[in-house]
Amino acid sequence: MIKINEHYLKLQASYLFSNIAKKVGEFQKSNPDKEIIRLGIGDVTRALPQACTEAFHKAVDEMAADSSFRGYGPEQGYDFLREAIVKNDFQSRGADIAADEIFVSDGAKCDTGNIQELFTQDARIAIPDPVYPVYLDTNVMAGRTGNFEDGRYKGIVYLDATKENNYVPGLPEEKVDLIYMCFPNNPTGSTITKAELQTWVDYARENQALILFDAAYEAFIRDESLPKSIYEIEGAKEVAIEFRSFSKSAGFTGTRCAYTVVPKECTAYDARGGKQAIHPLWNRRHCTKFNGVSYPVQRAAEAVYSEAGKTQAKELVTGYLKNADLIASEIKNLGYDFVGGDNSPYIWIEAKRDSWEFFDMLLDKAGVVCTPGAGFGKCGEGYIRLSAFNSYANVEKAMARIKKALA
Amino acid sequence: MIKINEHYLKLQASYLFSNIAKKVGEFQKSNPDKEIIRLGIGDVTRALPQACTEAFHKAVDEMAADSSFRGYGPEQGYDFLREAIVKNDFQSRGADIAADEIFVSDGAKCDTGNIQELFTQDARIAIPDPVYPVYLDTNVMAGRTGNFEDGRYKGIVYLDATKENNYVPGLPEEKVDLIYMCFPNNPTGSTITKAELQTWVDYARENQALILFDAAYEAFIRDESLPKSIYEIEGAKEVAIEFRSFSKSAGFTGTRCAYTVVPKECTAYDARGGKQAIHPLWNRRHCTKFNGVSYPVQRAAEAVYSEAGKTQAKELVTGYLKNADLIASEIKNLGYDFVGGDNSPYIWIEAKRDSWEFFDMLLDKAGVVCTPGAGFGKCGEGYIRLSAFNSYANVEKAMARIKKALA
Repeated sequence: MIKINEHYLKLQASYLFSNIAKKVGEFQKSNPDKEIIRLGIGDVTRALPQACTEAFHKAVDEMAADSSFRGYGPEQGYDFLREAIVKNDFQSRGADIAADEIFVSDGAKCDTGNIQELFTQDARIAIPDPVYPVYLDTNVMAGRTGNFEDGRYKGIVYLDATKENNYVPGLPEEKVDLIYMCFPNNPTGSTITKAELQTWVDYARENQALILFDAAYEAFIRDESLPKSIYEIEGAKEVAIEFRSFSKSAGFTGTRCAYTVVPKECTAYDARGGKQAIHPLWNRRHCTKFNGVSYPVQRAAEAVYSEAGKTQAKELVTGYLKNADLIASEIKNLGYDFVGGDNSPYIWIEAKRDSWEFFDMLLDKAGVVCTPGAGFGKCGEGYIRLSAFNSYANVEKAMARIKKALA
Repeated sequence: MIKINEHYLKLQASYLFSNIAKKVGEFQKSNPDKEIIRLGIGDVTRALPQACTEAFHKAVDEMAADSSFRGYGPEQGYDFLREAIVKNDFQSRGADIAADEIFVSDGAKCDTGNIQELFTQDARIAIPDPVYPVYLDTNVMAGRTGNFEDGRYKGIVYLDATKENNYVPGLPEEKVDLIYMCFPNNPTGSTITKAELQTWVDYARENQALILFDAAYEAFIRDESLPKSIYEIEGAKEVAIEFRSFSKSAGFTGTRCAYTVVPKECTAYDARGGKQAIHPLWNRRHCTKFNGVSYPVQRAAEAVYSEAGKTQAKELVTGYLKNADLIASEIKNLGYDFVGGDNSPYIWIEAKRDSWEFFDMLLDKAGVVCTPGAGFGKCGEGYIRLSAFNSYANVEKAMARIKKALA
C-alpha cells in the first residue's frame, strides 16, 4: 500500500499568498468596478532592464539556428554567468568567492526550500519569526517538526523579531544546528549591522552550526556600512551558505533566475563527527534533481552585470526605494510605528489590531492589498507588510486611499 | 553540531553523464585535432521550432514594457499552456485529463526526482534496471535504500529488463508500493503495449500501489497501436502519475519546460489506511518549493501546439527517427543484437564485452561517444546506448567510423 508522507498533513492551511489571492479574487468579483492596488506580495511590476531583454532576444536567436543552438547546459550554470556574479557581487566587495562556488538556479524559493535535504533529520533548526514561510514549511514537510500547536510547530527554535529587539533576533538560548537568516528581512524590512552579523558567525563557529543566509533583498541596501553578503564577515565562509536572486534586484520574478553560494570551506559533520564539505553534497543534489536554468534566461541575467544593465537595474531599485520612502513617510504621518523601507522594499507596520482584520479593512475600504503579518508567524500578529513594488503613481494613489480609510 | 544527511554518502561515484563528460574532455585534450561525434547523452542538437522562437521573442518583448510585464505567474503554470497541453496531448487521444491536473515545471528530471517526497519513508520501491539514474539516486538520497552492495542498493526491488523479457520487465514477485516505469524506455528504447501496460495498472489497483510513468519520449512513437500516455489505459487515473517533457519532443533541453499530470482521482493512503488524494499534496509541494516556469519559456512551449509548431516539432522528431533508422540498420549489418530505434531515439546494443570497455574503445578508435549501459544499472552491463540526437550527416559519419573500428 502506497502511503503518504504524513508530515504534509501537519502543514497549516494553504500557502499565505494563495489565501490572499483568493480573498482578493472574491473582493474583485463582488466589486468588479473597483480598481485594486497591490502592495501585498513582493512582486515587481516594472519591465526588465533593456540590457536584459536585448541579451534575452539575442540568445533566443541563437536557439533558432542549428549552428548556435544550445541543449543541456551545466547544471550549475554557465561559466559566463558564474564569473560575472563573483566578480560583481562578491570580489568587488572584498568577499573572496570563486565561480565554482556559485550554483545558478531558477529561484531562491527552490534553493532555500531544497537546501535542508542535505542535513540530518534531527537537526535542531532555528527560524526567525516573522519569516518568509518557505523555510518553515519545507522543514515541516521533511519531518523536522512536531505538530502545530498554539500557533507554532513543536521542535523548532523560533527567533523572535520584535519591536523590543528592533526586529533583529538575538542569539538563541538553546543550542541549534541550522540557522535561517534573512537580511534585509522579508517581511519586516529590518537590516543587520556587520557587528551583529559577526556575533551570529561567531556563534556558528563556536557551536559547529550552519547559517543559511537569504540575501535576496541586498540590492535595496543604501547604507554602505551594512553588509550585502555574509561573506563580508570574518569567518563566514566556513559556516554560511548564501542565497541570492535576480527577482528583486533586476525584476526577474517572472523570468526566473537566482543563485546559491556554497564556499568550499563550508562544512557540516558526519555521524562520526568528521568534517564533510557541503559543496560536493549540494553539487550532487543539483546535478541529480535539477537540469540548469534556461540558456536565454542565463544570458539575460548575465546582462544585469553589463554597464548598461547595472545602471538600468539600479534605476529599478531606486524607483522602488522612492516608493518605499513615500509609504514610510505617509505611515509615519498617520501615527503608526513601523520598521523597514530605508534599505528594503518592505515596510512593516504595527496595525494596532488583528492583522487579517487590518488586511480585510484595507482591501474593503481602500482597495489596497497588503500582507497580514500573522501569515509570517506568531510575532507577525498585529502587523501588516506593505510592499514598494508598484508604480509611483499607484503608490501615491494607494497612500491617499489608506489615509482616507484610516481617518 | 550540524550533521549531514548520511544517505548521500551511499551514492555511488558521480553522476553517469558527468563521468562521461570527464572522459570525453580528457580524450579531447590528448587528441585536440580529433573531431568527436556525440551519440551519448540524450541531448537534442537541432534548433527550436520557428513557431517557438517567434513566441519566445514576443514574450520577451512583453517583459520589456511596464504595461505588458509579467511578474510571478501561477506556480502550476499559466492556463494558456495547461489548456493547450490537455487538449493536444490527452483529450485528442481519448484521455480525459483536465487543465488543473497539469503541473508545468522546468524539467522532468526535477519532477521525477521530487515526487518521492510525497511518500512515506518505508515505501517499497520498484525500479527498472537498466534505468535513468534519477529515480534511483533520489530514493537513495531520501534514505529509502540500504547500502550499495554487489552493484545494487539494498531494499530496492529491481525490475530486470533483459533480452529474455524483450526489455519489458514482468510484474514483481514481492509486493511493492511505488513503481517507476519509462516507455519508450530510456536507455533501452523498448516500448510497452497497451495490454502489457494494462497488467501493470491492474497490479497497482489490486495492490494499492502507485505507478510513476515517465513518458518523456512519447513523441517518438510511430506505431499507433502503442500507448503514448498511461491514461489511455483503463483505470490508470486512480493509480498513476505521468511525467512529460518538451525536451525531446520540441528540442527544449536548453530551454527547460516539462509537466507532470496528477489526476484528481489518484490516491495514496494515510497511516490509518484512509485514502488521500495526491493532487493537493503535489500542489502544496509545487507552491512551496517552486515558483513557476519563466513566462517567455511557457509562451515558447505553448507555441509547440500551434499549427506551425506541431508541424515543425514533428519534423524534428522525424529527423531524429531517420537517424535512428540508420543507426539500427548499420548495427544490424554489423551483426550486433539490439532493441529500440523504431519508436525511440535510443538504440540499445549488446556490446559482447564490458560496457565501459566498449565506450573507451568507441571513443578511442572512432571518436564517437556512446553511453555505457553499466551506468544505467546491473542489467545494463554488457550493453551500450547510442542516441539518435545529432545531425544526419554526423550520424552517417559516426556509423562509418564505428564500422571501421569494429571491423
